[in-house]
Amino acid sequence: MNKIEHIGIAVKDLEQSNALFASLFGAPHYKIEEVASEGVKTSFFKTGPNKIELLEATKPDSPIAKFIEKKGEGIHHIAFAVDDIHAEIQRLKNEGFTVLNETPKKGADNKLVAFLHPKTTNGVLIELCQDADL
Amino acid sequence: MNKIEHIGIAVKDLEQSNALFASLFGAPHYKIEEVASEGVKTSFFKTGPNKIELLEATKPDSPIAKFIEKKGEGIHHIAFAVDDIHAEIQRLKNEGFTVLNETPKKGADNKLVAFLHPKTTNGVLIELCQDADL
Repeated sequence: MNKIEHIGIAVKDLEQSNALFASLFGAPHYKIEEVASEGVKTSFFKTGPNKIELLEATKPDSPIAKFIEKKGEGIHHIAFAVDDIHAEIQRLKNEGFTVLNETPKKGADNKLVAFLHPKTTNGVLIELCQDADL
Repeated sequence: MNKIEHIGIAVKDLEQSNALFASLFGAPHYKIEEVASEGVKTSFFKTGPNKIELLEATKPDSPIAKFIEKKGEGIHHIAFAVDDIHAEIQRLKNEGFTVLNETPKKGADNKLVAFLHPKTTNGVLIELCQDADL
């Protein structure tokens, strides 16, 4: 794993949170992207080599809507950049982690992504992500 | 803010979690440090320009013990590296954020740190940190 690619934060109101995080970072979000398959609208902020991804649910059964209902707004996942997501999935399965997506799926920001079940990672939802163009 | 300096993860059993995160990253923690004033024992992992800090409570009234009691194990805070923590505290106060430590305190890893109240940051506990030697 090369670095923290981004941290995903679940928010109720993307517009309001975009203003809040722009104040925090002293710079606005640089893009908005909807991932219809996941029922989320996302916005991205840069902080040096890392990104912050805000996630707003676009439908009631979105994982983000369910997360906020259960836990409130806050950090939803950490994503680590990997060079070869297929090799990492295999390695982590061999190490005993539960990989939720044995076949990586298309995520926001032109990435291939796969999640690890938080039950095997101290309650932390971990995403692996690889540039889809590699 | 220059980058994500580290993500702090609250764990019940540091030894067990050190083994787990060593499997995850394919490399062991590189240091252990106790911060007696905060009632925590910490371990650090590197992932490129970022760190992961595992936090275990060393006393029942430690903020980490209280966090785990309330929310279970998981992500506790995000720390952002700043060059001038005093200037950032002032800037963020002016932006309307609630700064929990107007005078930065000594944290783990030779840092000066200050926290923002999660009520003003979408439920995310945010730490500012600056190298104490600067």
